[in-house]
Amino acid sequence: MSTVEGLGERKIIEIIWENLDKTSDMPVPFGDDVSAVKLESAKLAVLKTDMLVGCTDIPPRMSYWQAARKAIVMNVSDFAAKGVKPQGIIVSLGIPRSLSKKAVEQIGKGLNAGAREYGTFVLGGDTNEARDLIISIAVFGLAKKENLVLRSGAVIGDIVATTGLFGLASAGLKILTEGLGASQKIGRKLLDAALMPKARLREGLVLAKTGAVTASIDSSDGLAWSLHEISRASNVGFMIDAPPIALETYEFAKMHNIDPFELSFYGGEEYELVVTVDPKHWRNVQAKVSHQGGRLIKIGQVMGDKKILLKERGQVAEIEARGYEHLGYDGGRDS
Amino acid sequence: MSTVEGLGERKIIEIIWENLDKTSDMPVPFGDDVSAVKLESAKLAVLKTDMLVGCTDIPPRMSYWQAARKAIVMNVSDFAAKGVKPQGIIVSLGIPRSLSKKAVEQIGKGLNAGAREYGTFVLGGDTNEARDLIISIAVFGLAKKENLVLRSGAVIGDIVATTGLFGLASAGLKILTEGLGASQKIGRKLLDAALMPKARLREGLVLAKTGAVTASIDSSDGLAWSLHEISRASNVGFMIDAPPIALETYEFAKMHNIDPFELSFYGGEEYELVVTVDPKHWRNVQAKVSHQGGRLIKIGQVMGDKKILLKERGQVAEIEARGYEHLGYDGGRDS
Repeated sequence: MSTVEGLGERKIIEIIWENLDKTSDMPVPFGDDVSAVKLESAKLAVLKTDMLVGCTDIPPRMSYWQAARKAIVMNVSDFAAKGVKPQGIIVSLGIPRSLSKKAVEQIGKGLNAGAREYGTFVLGGDTNEARDLIISIAVFGLAKKENLVLRSGAVIGDIVATTGLFGLASAGLKILTEGLGASQKIGRKLLDAALMPKARLREGLVLAKTGAVTASIDSSDGLAWSLHEISRASNVGFMIDAPPIALETYEFAKMHNIDPFELSFYGGEEYELVVTVDPKHWRNVQAKVSHQGGRLIKIGQVMGDKKILLKERGQVAEIEARGYEHLGYDGGRDS
Repeated sequence: MSTVEGLGERKIIEIIWENLDKTSDMPVPFGDDVSAVKLESAKLAVLKTDMLVGCTDIPPRMSYWQAARKAIVMNVSDFAAKGVKPQGIIVSLGIPRSLSKKAVEQIGKGLNAGAREYGTFVLGGDTNEARDLIISIAVFGLAKKENLVLRSGAVIGDIVATTGLFGLASAGLKILTEGLGASQKIGRKLLDAALMPKARLREGLVLAKTGAVTASIDSSDGLAWSLHEISRASNVGFMIDAPPIALETYEFAKMHNIDPFELSFYGGEEYELVVTVDPKHWRNVQAKVSHQGGRLIKIGQVMGDKKILLKERGQVAEIEARGYEHLGYDGGRDS
């Protein structure tokens, strides 16, 4: 009997999807970052659920407070990618018997901190017994259909951009899980990226409002994967000529003889947004994000050829369709 | 260090609640069956999330299809209690590596069957790796605030009623988990109650529309617990003089020398609604439920004295505040 081991979570989602009846009125396609229900008022109710699982998603040294906050960030990040403000959060917990009462308090405080950080509240939830600690979050929000930025709108000639530089969280996770060292100077920043990820909600809301963003996704499964997802949904390719790699990533990579490109493109657990922007409005869009205290970094261009290429020092190489995936062949970070 | 073992899930929810900031605009109090967000249109977005956990919530002989369907039923049942029609479901799965591909298909089909049974669709979701099978569901719906039946409105003199008789699911679970026998005649019915629970959505929607239901809750933690919850939220007591025990419960209890009252009041995993109804409208309310193919069974009355009493053959006994609870002192059924 074949098990899901090696199948990968995306294939699992596909199997589920194949077995579902489809409603004719689905404003957001299955598999995009959020789901939605059309309301009478021509607005959409936007919904997202994702869970944090203790044994796979909580690295060593991450506190319960940080884990609970991260569970919220993971979900808010998808709202950010679609440009939707979260208006309420509900939580379903799976609690192991061995968990301390203190840990439950920390989880409560972490959930609250995550919700408040993004301007919303935890409104309710349920608790169950489980072997793993499970923090399952559902987020609710409202959007106008025309403002919701799907994965599927990228057009040839669009600029590809990210809201930040990559590789920090991956490097931080290597410090936490593999015990790799880092100088004090960059160590704090790398650990922070892994333990205290930030959802780019402010950026996402501004970006959606400009009307010039044609596709958007977060990068929780890795930058390479995000590019491949937009490519698949929009039926386009990318030429990446300015890979968004943080200086600290280069430094950490050099210290440990790791490929900085590997850390930045295939790492996952990054929460920068990856967007495509109509070039006519690029300067305006970039200025608006800056005005909100964020940044938008041009990393390449959308092309018709459905490949995802990296151009560096005149050399062109293909960016692979892999990234962080639970239950995948490589078993992800947690195998 | 004190662990949550023996704390009980309600205490855990309380600890979480104590650590949350509260929004001033909370149309449904924390701890009621669902949560809600006020919309501009004076409507409420109603939300519910709860998870089914493999190791504690799936009895032997329950198929993956049934488990996935039950995960939906558990959540829809809370919508039923509040009189809200589900308008969309999202799912977050925790999948163990050892799970078969076939099982994933069955889960997909079971989720779909549950959603379709209650007139809605599964719109999206996410998958993760976990040690247990976790099926975490979030349901969305809309309601007018004045139609939402909370736990807190029961008034002295109201009639207490249920949408069905009790003890069948508890007996069925005893067959499944303890290997107790039953005659063929009743065995099928008891197993059905445990494996194919039904949410009383039709009844709940009709009840809410009458405007004469003052409080409502489902009975997934047991009839006794439901009564205590309404008692606590409404600050009233109950005199139960017609305990809603199924004939098959009596028969099974007699066969195994078990207390039928224990099976019916403290069992849990029943999905009948427990409601209080304005006596002036009782006949009308009952007729409307009948008209929908359901039934409403009078089991007692609301009283001012904040006790929950059972009157049987002239004897009066107190109904205890216990029921099915994860992580509780008695460890629930799954300890």
